[in-house]
Amino acid sequence: MRATMMYTAGDVRVEDAPDAALQDPTDAVVRVVRTCICGSDLHPYHSKEDAEPAFMGHEFLGTVEEVGSEVTGLKKGDLVVAPFAYGCGSCVLCREGLPTSCPQGGFFTSAQSEAIRAPFADYNLTKLPGDVDETLLPSLLTLADVYGTGWHAAVKAGVNPSTSVTVIGDGAVGLLAVLSARQLGAEQIILMGRHQARTDLGREFGATDVVAERGEEGIEKVRELTGGLGTHTVLEAVGHMPAYEQSVGVVRPGGVISRVGVPQYDQASVGFTSLFGPNVTLTGGPAPTRSYIDDLLPGVLGGTVEPGKVFDRHIGLEETPEGYRAMDQRESLKVLVTP
Amino acid sequence: MRATMMYTAGDVRVEDAPDAALQDPTDAVVRVVRTCICGSDLHPYHSKEDAEPAFMGHEFLGTVEEVGSEVTGLKKGDLVVAPFAYGCGSCVLCREGLPTSCPQGGFFTSAQSEAIRAPFADYNLTKLPGDVDETLLPSLLTLADVYGTGWHAAVKAGVNPSTSVTVIGDGAVGLLAVLSARQLGAEQIILMGRHQARTDLGREFGATDVVAERGEEGIEKVRELTGGLGTHTVLEAVGHMPAYEQSVGVVRPGGVISRVGVPQYDQASVGFTSLFGPNVTLTGGPAPTRSYIDDLLPGVLGGTVEPGKVFDRHIGLEETPEGYRAMDQRESLKVLVTP
Repeated sequence: MRATMMYTAGDVRVEDAPDAALQDPTDAVVRVVRTCICGSDLHPYHSKEDAEPAFMGHEFLGTVEEVGSEVTGLKKGDLVVAPFAYGCGSCVLCREGLPTSCPQGGFFTSAQSEAIRAPFADYNLTKLPGDVDETLLPSLLTLADVYGTGWHAAVKAGVNPSTSVTVIGDGAVGLLAVLSARQLGAEQIILMGRHQARTDLGREFGATDVVAERGEEGIEKVRELTGGLGTHTVLEAVGHMPAYEQSVGVVRPGGVISRVGVPQYDQASVGFTSLFGPNVTLTGGPAPTRSYIDDLLPGVLGGTVEPGKVFDRHIGLEETPEGYRAMDQRESLKVLVTP
Repeated sequence: MRATMMYTAGDVRVEDAPDAALQDPTDAVVRVVRTCICGSDLHPYHSKEDAEPAFMGHEFLGTVEEVGSEVTGLKKGDLVVAPFAYGCGSCVLCREGLPTSCPQGGFFTSAQSEAIRAPFADYNLTKLPGDVDETLLPSLLTLADVYGTGWHAAVKAGVNPSTSVTVIGDGAVGLLAVLSARQLGAEQIILMGRHQARTDLGREFGATDVVAERGEEGIEKVRELTGGLGTHTVLEAVGHMPAYEQSVGVVRPGGVISRVGVPQYDQASVGFTSLFGPNVTLTGGPAPTRSYIDDLLPGVLGGTVEPGKVFDRHIGLEETPEGYRAMDQRESLKVLVTP
């Protein structure tokens, strides 16, 4: 099969690779119908040092091609969507809704390919209606990661109709954090971002204010918009230290910073002046999107939300190197790939 | 009046000072009936560098001696207890229950004295029954800080009958975090501490297990007691970096670390391997004990809890230097002072 491989930073190629195949009786092999490039794929695109080629991609929906002998709920031809992080489905952490911490779990790593092996298929693959309109596929694909991740940020922050919200980052996750906060009833949603095409989509998704300024100036703007106090919740969808500092700057005393941008740092200020003194809570992590698919699917199928609007470029599998380049250059917000 | 003053580290004296007096019409002056020395008073006792003498003490109950012209709910002779942190009572943060972040608020700083000025007295001073039995005074005094602070740790962590709990620290706050977790219904409460007299009191307060080991060994013990997973909540009542690291080591994926030990560090690990990857929440801060007094008072007055058991030494005001020494040397858990 054809598959996207990353060599060193900036060097992405589409190559022949061994066909995806069953390994365990609980596996399925899925023919990828839609996949995409994630903002987090840009981290190795910037920093990968070793030259050992690595498969890429963790978001996919597709049709089941083959199932292992212990898979009972799926059959060849079923249209399914997967979470970017899989779990076993039966351990206590999976049952508590946290497959991202499943000891037998992991992250999908070869979705930007023609086909992919899915472990614990009965648990991880959610069946979609077979006759779903093709125009819904981009939105359905966002359930794999970016929509579920934005939702996770908002849920972990405890967003509700009485909480004000700041969203830091106008990437796909940030914009879908806006959408999620709106769905959860937030009335004031301040989007911090500076790319107008993106912040315009953020307004469409429910942002009530956009703050383009960064650093102290950005903090000042958010405080002006919130009676000097900051917002009850901050959804941080970037992962770099300035975004953390911005979060601390705009959160209201007693509020919550919910991070879903993968932190590109280890140490941060958590002492008296940053988090402790004002009783600020720091939460978040990799989203267990599997746990949210059932809740979010009806809105997507019913057309009440259209998270797939984050895709602003559609390419074929052979063009993924160009897709990486376009996202890296910020020519594209998020690239949809049809193998 | 006589008052406890700290000069440089280790140098505590009881001296004559100007009498406490009304400054604002919302003030009251309270004659201190019971005060005490706090574990956090030991921080300056170890590190104070300047020689400028500072008043000491933030916990007190006493009788109202004089009220300002705008105080309506209190009169001379009322027995009252105060929170260690006062607020204005009318701003949005006070109304939300967070007087620790009130712009007009602050921490009491001269309670180890014969008398003290209390700002915004109507809000900050809670009236106690005038005929209360004197044996209840120690427990009532814990409402000012250590009981309310242990309660804050447990409440912010979301302790409930289905959460397992680790308490780090066998000081007064740690022991009262145990008591609070038990009151909130927790069934497994692991107390990490190594001073047997204290951990024995912890068991009396509700600890089901005691782990004396520290570091990796202590983490291993807690994991053994919890099926390898750690506890849903960790109540951190120390404030030093090893306690933070211990918290990260014993918290279950998806769990909560709730800090009430004042952090003696600024930077800490919050990246993928510590907090983010396992979706661990970090919360806590200075306890708004004013907000908890109404909830906790009935249990103390009714005798269903006896948080005052943390006091293991009773002294007079002139002996506070000796009280500091005894607590610093760990001869005493917590010292009660009767001016």
